[in-house]
Amino acid sequence: MYKKIGVLTGGGDAPGLNAVIRAAVRTAIGEFGMRCIGIEDSFEGILGETQLRKLTTKTVSGILPRGGTILGTRNKGSFCKIVDGDMVIQEMPIDEALLNLVKNGIEALIVIGGEGTLAIAEEFHKRGFPVIGVPKTIDNDLSATELTFGFMTAIDIATEGLDRLHTTAASHDRVMIMEVMGRNTGWIALHAGLAGSADIILIPEIPFSFDSIVKKVYEREKTGSKFTNIVVAEGAIEVGKDEMYLDNKEMRLGGIGNYIRGRVEEITGKESRCVVLGHLQRGGSPNAFDRMLGTNFGACAVRALASGMKGEMVALRAGQVVNVPLADAIANVKCVSVDGQLVRTGRDIGISFAAPNEDDF
Amino acid sequence: MYKKIGVLTGGGDAPGLNAVIRAAVRTAIGEFGMRCIGIEDSFEGILGETQLRKLTTKTVSGILPRGGTILGTRNKGSFCKIVDGDMVIQEMPIDEALLNLVKNGIEALIVIGGEGTLAIAEEFHKRGFPVIGVPKTIDNDLSATELTFGFMTAIDIATEGLDRLHTTAASHDRVMIMEVMGRNTGWIALHAGLAGSADIILIPEIPFSFDSIVKKVYEREKTGSKFTNIVVAEGAIEVGKDEMYLDNKEMRLGGIGNYIRGRVEEITGKESRCVVLGHLQRGGSPNAFDRMLGTNFGACAVRALASGMKGEMVALRAGQVVNVPLADAIANVKCVSVDGQLVRTGRDIGISFAAPNEDDF
Amino acid sequence: MYKKIGVLTGGGDAPGLNAVIRAAVRTAIGEFGMRCIGIEDSFEGILGETQLRKLTTKTVSGILPRGGTILGTRNKGSFCKIVDGDMVIQEMPIDEALLNLVKNGIEALIVIGGEGTLAIAEEFHKRGFPVIGVPKTIDNDLSATELTFGFMTAIDIATEGLDRLHTTAASHDRVMIMEVMGRNTGWIALHAGLAGSADIILIPEIPFSFDSIVKKVYEREKTGSKFTNIVVAEGAIEVGKDEMYLDNKEMRLGGIGNYIRGRVEEITGKESRCVVLGHLQRGGSPNAFDRMLGTNFGACAVRALASGMKGEMVALRAGQVVNVPLADAIANVKCVSVDGQLVRTGRDIGISFAAPNEDDF
Amino acid sequence: MYKKIGVLTGGGDAPGLNAVIRAAVRTAIGEFGMRCIGIEDSFEGILGETQLRKLTTKTVSGILPRGGTILGTRNKGSFCKIVDGDMVIQEMPIDEALLNLVKNGIEALIVIGGEGTLAIAEEFHKRGFPVIGVPKTIDNDLSATELTFGFMTAIDIATEGLDRLHTTAASHDRVMIMEVMGRNTGWIALHAGLAGSADIILIPEIPFSFDSIVKKVYEREKTGSKFTNIVVAEGAIEVGKDEMYLDNKEMRLGGIGNYIRGRVEEITGKESRCVVLGHLQRGGSPNAFDRMLGTNFGACAVRALASGMKGEMVALRAGQVVNVPLADAIANVKCVSVDGQLVRTGRDIGISFAAPNEDDF
Repeated sequence: MYKKIGVLTGGGDAPGLNAVIRAAVRTAIGEFGMRCIGIEDSFEGILGETQLRKLTTKTVSGILPRGGTILGTRNKGSFCKIVDGDMVIQEMPIDEALLNLVKNGIEALIVIGGEGTLAIAEEFHKRGFPVIGVPKTIDNDLSATELTFGFMTAIDIATEGLDRLHTTAASHDRVMIMEVMGRNTGWIALHAGLAGSADIILIPEIPFSFDSIVKKVYEREKTGSKFTNIVVAEGAIEVGKDEMYLDNKEMRLGGIGNYIRGRVEEITGKESRCVVLGHLQRGGSPNAFDRMLGTNFGACAVRALASGMKGEMVALRAGQVVNVPLADAIANVKCVSVDGQLVRTGRDIGISFAAPNEDDF
Repeated sequence: MYKKIGVLTGGGDAPGLNAVIRAAVRTAIGEFGMRCIGIEDSFEGILGETQLRKLTTKTVSGILPRGGTILGTRNKGSFCKIVDGDMVIQEMPIDEALLNLVKNGIEALIVIGGEGTLAIAEEFHKRGFPVIGVPKTIDNDLSATELTFGFMTAIDIATEGLDRLHTTAASHDRVMIMEVMGRNTGWIALHAGLAGSADIILIPEIPFSFDSIVKKVYEREKTGSKFTNIVVAEGAIEVGKDEMYLDNKEMRLGGIGNYIRGRVEEITGKESRCVVLGHLQRGGSPNAFDRMLGTNFGACAVRALASGMKGEMVALRAGQVVNVPLADAIANVKCVSVDGQLVRTGRDIGISFAAPNEDDF
Repeated sequence: MYKKIGVLTGGGDAPGLNAVIRAAVRTAIGEFGMRCIGIEDSFEGILGETQLRKLTTKTVSGILPRGGTILGTRNKGSFCKIVDGDMVIQEMPIDEALLNLVKNGIEALIVIGGEGTLAIAEEFHKRGFPVIGVPKTIDNDLSATELTFGFMTAIDIATEGLDRLHTTAASHDRVMIMEVMGRNTGWIALHAGLAGSADIILIPEIPFSFDSIVKKVYEREKTGSKFTNIVVAEGAIEVGKDEMYLDNKEMRLGGIGNYIRGRVEEITGKESRCVVLGHLQRGGSPNAFDRMLGTNFGACAVRALASGMKGEMVALRAGQVVNVPLADAIANVKCVSVDGQLVRTGRDIGISFAAPNEDDF
Repeated sequence: MYKKIGVLTGGGDAPGLNAVIRAAVRTAIGEFGMRCIGIEDSFEGILGETQLRKLTTKTVSGILPRGGTILGTRNKGSFCKIVDGDMVIQEMPIDEALLNLVKNGIEALIVIGGEGTLAIAEEFHKRGFPVIGVPKTIDNDLSATELTFGFMTAIDIATEGLDRLHTTAASHDRVMIMEVMGRNTGWIALHAGLAGSADIILIPEIPFSFDSIVKKVYEREKTGSKFTNIVVAEGAIEVGKDEMYLDNKEMRLGGIGNYIRGRVEEITGKESRCVVLGHLQRGGSPNAFDRMLGTNFGACAVRALASGMKGEMVALRAGQVVNVPLADAIANVKCVSVDGQLVRTGRDIGISFAAPNEDDF
């Protein structure tokens, strides 16, 4: 049994991080008699002694309903391997980190983070250091776990946003566009669109055409609905365009949502407005499910450590938390299946995904 | 393919019923060209012609975010089989109902309801009438499906309630008790207790002792926490008592929560307060997950009908909606596993379930 | 200018107390260079040295959105004057308290509380000790101030409760009753009833008759609305009954709401349900208005102290925070005017107050 | 007494419009026996017969909690007087409108709208047509009324947004900027900033300097707070710049919030992010206060009509709804007083308004 373990959070923040930290600390101390060290600002805290602090039951008291992470986090940092062609410009300072962990008596790590953070954790594991991962991805795009904390809260916020825009759209006969997170996958847009009564859902997995968007707007017009609600993932892409068109200045400033707004207004002549939800989706108090799942993940991760597991990650499968190899977790991204159940349900209830051949479905 | 189908909702209302109705109607009309008849007040509507009404895309417009059911519902009614010993006093009027369905041209039914409602649906199925069920149980106690709509919203409300009571408990050094739904199972209490930072969770599956409750209160006192939050399922039971003690007048009026409040105050001398959440848990707008799941259930149920299935029920398994026999759905109740993962996680993070031998865990 | 001031909160907790504390501490320290002492558990903290603690900008960081009071509170305590006929059994320990204040270098007090707490503050003022009051009453029944923090949050919660009950009532054709706070005044019931679409509002200022309640239920039935929503203040009273009828055991256990539920079900035969909101109304995060008003009250109270005022209370009048004598604040209760604007508006839009002569309005 | 009155809503939508419509219709029909005609899409509906529809108690049933306006609205339209220099290019079609009102038997109007809409209403009044106005401005900048519906809900949403951004800012050590409505006045930014714990508030009434912004960021850094939250009204302006700088393309696309984000990141090197709340602030369900105030306004407006008043507007003063001349309502804008109570309170608790001479306060 380990005497002292470290806990850290990496990558973008997500509602439920504090639930994981709290449950891990309480379980480690209360159930297994371990001591806990909070490592600040992702792996950075390992490199400098000042950013380690003792975590006690008191330290984690009252943090369950709070957003963010009491440990701080970092998106990229010293552990970001930098490569230029074949040349490695910056290696991960794993050796230095291992030395510091030993120096501080830390015998194992709970690492809470997304793909990038877990990939670093895997490096520690490969060097023989005991580590258990907890998956974090607000986009819900890790294939190894059915769900992670943060996603449900993001869906709630995006759905509430759609509810709000809906009434304005209807009162003003407008096209309203809401841009949500999802650079590579459309999970948030898809779920929020179904829950928030969107008329059109645009996701990276289904390239869209303006013809199809406009067709849907006019179809609705004919049946007496003079407004249209569109939810678009930030990574949605126009059919035939490559991703680089997102790099021009207009797109960088306004994003895909504003780009669509402008074009739809131009083509249809209808008043159009766009809201970019942005960081509103990832901050703030987690909903009940995310608090519960985060708590279960945190406790299960420490139990896995205590039972001697290494290089594993907790994951949700069929309602149970199980353990899977860390390597699996970072292997591949879970995309929306373009002919899967949810997309079919969307089309069945009359939602358009604006594919060029949308009518064929 | 059916030309005309009926839709009805039975049993207690739950957030998400309207999402199911809306998706079923839109799918039936838009995807399969069926006509839809809304049957009011559960199966009662079949018995009298006045309570049938046409459902169109317009009729179900705007109902997604609304609680309750636009079709009305009934807890018990004419289809309640009444038995006195061996003698059947009232049979279900299935024959009459079948005649009326035929008379109105209704060729198949989508029945949305819990155990009792689905058992009646099963009777229609046995008589050869095509029926697909959609499971509804706010208590989440149907073994055939991992989750149903309404449960997550109930958990959100109960967790928000615990958050509110928490600050008052801490400010006044009180014992606060919140009674939630769950006559036979403790799912709501367990999930909300984990999400809402309860100190003690009392569920029907684990009979509680006042000694264990009081012990936890005093333990907290010693470590400087002068308040205690308790969440109790309405069906929680004191160890050694049979269920009948719930029938005495004090219990009937005040419920188990108020009973515990009185006894804890008596034993510990600490100010104690109780709130009974009651109907606040089942009304109102569904959260995003319940809207999404209800929508998926509704569309999948109609697709099942359209593909020729009969006597089946939609169910959620490992994130996918599948079909299972109606008979399975009503076979057995899903209870909280007393040595399962969530209870263990609860105990690991310091929550007491107040079993007589709570210290052994 | 004072060098050191004390801050305390007394009476029941209300959303916004922490906003007042935070603003008072930040203003005292940042603007006037005072030191701040937090006095725990209302005036009790003055009597024992252990319950005084230094408040700094760091101490009050992050408390704005939190319910309750970080200083703790007490409903009644050592400063409760106890009288038996002409004989004073317990005097307030003002002398002892003044000595302790001097001993701790505390030169002035900010006292945040309701009628009872401010009456004790007035005693300190009479003895020459500088004190400024901040009014707190979740019932909004202090005549000296138009509004206090906590009330708006309570109204939001009660209105959300009515929204939830509304859908269940309509789905099940029930009479739903929600009991809210208001022992002597009906402000919460009146505001929430108007905002939450109640059909009947029962307040202490207008004694109700069951005849009038039942008449409204039947009237609605005739126009096709088979359900009725009732909001009742806990202090509502049946016409012709004195307050003592609230003392019998049934009422004590179930409250006025459950009493009405039973009687209405008995008379009309309609399914009726009751929810008692209770402590859900006073805990939890304050809404934006209450945070803003609490903040303004806290800063204005310290400015008043700093400008040499004594024995005053901050109050809201026509959108501005002003100062009024403490004595005024505790002089009289603000009741709902039975022929005032809001009651008239209620009746104009079809709400019944169930007065015996309700038809005359 | 009028036999038939018309009701219309004009300008941008605001939470509470439906509350006004519902109360006006119920009062007119139930209390005064009038008939009600809903005029669609602001004054446009008067010009074409198709856009008039009968409003009954049933029509307005269930709309109280809904955002937007069931009557539709229009920002500008046929009644927009267009002037080029001294030449009037388009006159308001008042004559035509009056004829159509007479033709449809409409004898008086309830006009719900902002400055622009009420100015048109005033034109009808000048021509002798009975009209009563109800003020609507989500920015709360009408001097004739202390508060209007919609503002409080906007504040709640903006405050919740700040709460969400706060946790991300703290977790990532970022500067987070939230842009809120307020083209000419800073009421939303000021209230939300106080309620949502902003560190810097930028409003049109106090031109800001980047020096002052950066100074505050560094000051916080020194005391251990590595993050800063900024709320900025869309009409905030840099000192020394005229309003035209908002017209360059960068500003038009990104808005003032994104402009500040870029500059702050440039100067300080700190990661900065911006969220533009936009239409999220004006849609969706009104909070309890806005429903209550909207209801009271609607009933009072009809009572004013019924009592023979003309050319008046309802207004809130010291907690009471009173009547004031329409002409007053549109006379002048209510700005934030730069040395008023709320700004002073903000500065007292450590908020910077980033004036060039901010240190002097």
